[in-house]
Amino acid sequence: MTVETLLSAATPVEAGTSDPAALVEAMALAGRAAQRDLARLSDDQKATALRAAAAALRAAAPQILEANARDIAAGEANGLTPALLDRLRLDAGRLAGIADAIDQVAGLPDPVGEVIATSERPNGLRLSRVRIPIGLIGIIYESRPNVTADAAALCLRSGNAVLLRGGSEAVHSNRAILAAMVSGLTAAGVPEAAVQLVPTQDRAVVGAMLTAAGLIDMIVPRGGKSLVARVQADARVPVLAHLDGICHTYIHESADPAMAKALALNAKLRRTGICGAMETLLLDARFPASGDVVAALLDGGCEVRGDARAQALDPRIAPASAEDWDTEYLDAILSVAVVDGLDVALDHIAAHSSAHTDAIVTADDAVAERFLAEVDSAIVMVNASSQFADGGEFGLGAEIGIATGRLHARGPVALEGLTTYKWLVRGTGQARP
Amino acid sequence: MTVETLLSAATPVEAGTSDPAALVEAMALAGRAAQRDLARLSDDQKATALRAAAAALRAAAPQILEANARDIAAGEANGLTPALLDRLRLDAGRLAGIADAIDQVAGLPDPVGEVIATSERPNGLRLSRVRIPIGLIGIIYESRPNVTADAAALCLRSGNAVLLRGGSEAVHSNRAILAAMVSGLTAAGVPEAAVQLVPTQDRAVVGAMLTAAGLIDMIVPRGGKSLVARVQADARVPVLAHLDGICHTYIHESADPAMAKALALNAKLRRTGICGAMETLLLDARFPASGDVVAALLDGGCEVRGDARAQALDPRIAPASAEDWDTEYLDAILSVAVVDGLDVALDHIAAHSSAHTDAIVTADDAVAERFLAEVDSAIVMVNASSQFADGGEFGLGAEIGIATGRLHARGPVALEGLTTYKWLVRGTGQARP
Repeated sequence: MTVETLLSAATPVEAGTSDPAALVEAMALAGRAAQRDLARLSDDQKATALRAAAAALRAAAPQILEANARDIAAGEANGLTPALLDRLRLDAGRLAGIADAIDQVAGLPDPVGEVIATSERPNGLRLSRVRIPIGLIGIIYESRPNVTADAAALCLRSGNAVLLRGGSEAVHSNRAILAAMVSGLTAAGVPEAAVQLVPTQDRAVVGAMLTAAGLIDMIVPRGGKSLVARVQADARVPVLAHLDGICHTYIHESADPAMAKALALNAKLRRTGICGAMETLLLDARFPASGDVVAALLDGGCEVRGDARAQALDPRIAPASAEDWDTEYLDAILSVAVVDGLDVALDHIAAHSSAHTDAIVTADDAVAERFLAEVDSAIVMVNASSQFADGGEFGLGAEIGIATGRLHARGPVALEGLTTYKWLVRGTGQARP
Repeated sequence: MTVETLLSAATPVEAGTSDPAALVEAMALAGRAAQRDLARLSDDQKATALRAAAAALRAAAPQILEANARDIAAGEANGLTPALLDRLRLDAGRLAGIADAIDQVAGLPDPVGEVIATSERPNGLRLSRVRIPIGLIGIIYESRPNVTADAAALCLRSGNAVLLRGGSEAVHSNRAILAAMVSGLTAAGVPEAAVQLVPTQDRAVVGAMLTAAGLIDMIVPRGGKSLVARVQADARVPVLAHLDGICHTYIHESADPAMAKALALNAKLRRTGICGAMETLLLDARFPASGDVVAALLDGGCEVRGDARAQALDPRIAPASAEDWDTEYLDAILSVAVVDGLDVALDHIAAHSSAHTDAIVTADDAVAERFLAEVDSAIVMVNASSQFADGGEFGLGAEIGIATGRLHARGPVALEGLTTYKWLVRGTGQARP
């Protein structure tokens, strides 16, 4: 679904929610109060509560699938595309996967309480910086009902309360998933308001969440580019997100030809719709096997759009327009440029990268290290497929999203990115001279 | 000066700067390009360049003092208060202090390049997270000319470019300081656009900086509450700041009476105008020496406003209004409440603290640890004066400011807070299965 349908959802405003700002404020204050209690729970208590939520979700499978069937029926009646219906649809296997994912998050190490640094001052003051939850996280998402469970689990594991605002297509599924989770969580001592789902599809609630500075501490949008763009444009609350994944791979002249071909194929074609997929291939003019690489991509079903020198490599390559260098295709389409050396490649990446993931293939260590040092993206890779840009692949266990902003957290963001810190100062009566 | 005078400064717009947004964009793009070069400089090169800037500042003392005399003369003609004139005024000693502070920043360890974490995946990918500069920092400040040098030095030391927008009262001083620093920096290989001062006092430039998302990476306001409030309200760029320092000290029933009195006096009266000064004192109803503590404060010249139970401690205590509990006096005024135990104190702090610095005085370790765990402020202290809330006192060498937001950096922010990180992934040809 698009952000337009998300925002224009026609579900009537529910009783007592006629003022979206008042609704968001009331829910946020309840969430913040619950978070103070949540912050007192131990690592074990939080893990146990999440396992109880997963068990409750499994026990409620019939009700959740029935609710989902209502969403699917409504979606079919409203003419949703098969792709959107597929994202929306739950079955026993997918629901088991959602419950298993909650258990996995329960098993991740708790970042809260970690001592980041300590020091002792000459006057005897002992200082430490300790990780704490951020507070109340807002999640604004589209039609995938699994986000309800995934995002709630990650926020709770790190001691945060969460305010969820899902897409209208999934409203019954989301409510059923949330009700099951909350029943498990509250039985294990988590306050009910620690996880809340906005009870109305009134589009103004999204705007109220985005401007709730001081009430919501961070917003994470989960969905397509139009949703993320709207959130980034309108938010007064800090946003953790990436808008684009315009990922480059530069094949240096020293690259092993077989490795270069394998990585280009994997980076582009393994899955074309993920944010870590390669969108632009930079071929060094002195790399001897460029023709083989582009032929393999073309033979693999990829449309290739090139600059003049790239077009000379294969007659099947179409001309690239200026727009192509700034386009995230999320499809089997690739822009290809031939560049004269590392500096030109670095300049192209600096000009066109979305700061998500950029990679080099090279056998020259000095070139690799310069690329790592000078490319300013959230993730910079040497001799690896950009499709590895993922919290699970990075060993984080799960991710709330991938961030391309410059502050707080970059790249795949998991539990640590859902924490902040405070300074603890332990004295013995020191007054400042 | 107030933000109103900052923003209404009548200095004519200079040639070529008639469009504030275009001016900010042009300067920001120049700064970003310079930052790419700056990021390539080594630790030693950056330190050497800062020492050259300090030396150039010393050599240019006559010109800087002459420029400052023009600002002072204009300020006197415009009826600036003595306090504002004092902040604006430079002399040989103050200028030497500014140059020495640059040398001290040069001597701080460079955070750039620090490896925060490493890991190796089962597939052989080697991951690391490495500190890098944030990019281009915007500093919006009032009449203190030393901020020009201090902020520029901290940004450069951490590899960031900086765009400075100072108050109109200090325009000649700021230009002279910047010109001297840039002469030293460029001679040492730093690109000229790494440090830029907005060349016009056109008030619209502040607005253009605040909305320059994607061009300026972070804004740090340096000045009074009205400036910070305006920056926080209007900025679309992330802001590092604190609005208020409503700092509490809670005297637990177990506190040593002499320590409690000494810390209360120091926290309130050592300097009343700093953000770490105590503004509210919470006296436990079971603490036996409350009368002595408030008498000492009153005898020390502090006006005390109390709730009914506090008023019973001393006839000189005036009644506190509801507003007093949310007021940062920055003066010899204190609000005092008597509370029944730790939980009530925690509730009061949760309701009224500005999340800057809150302290407890107690001899009970379990109470101290609960206070440290449950107070959610940037700095939480046990048995120490809240006036220690300062980057220098924390051993950071210097500070760009104190932050009370929840993301990125909290409390005193120095060089580390001016960095972010990127993920480096080193492979040997891994494709994602």
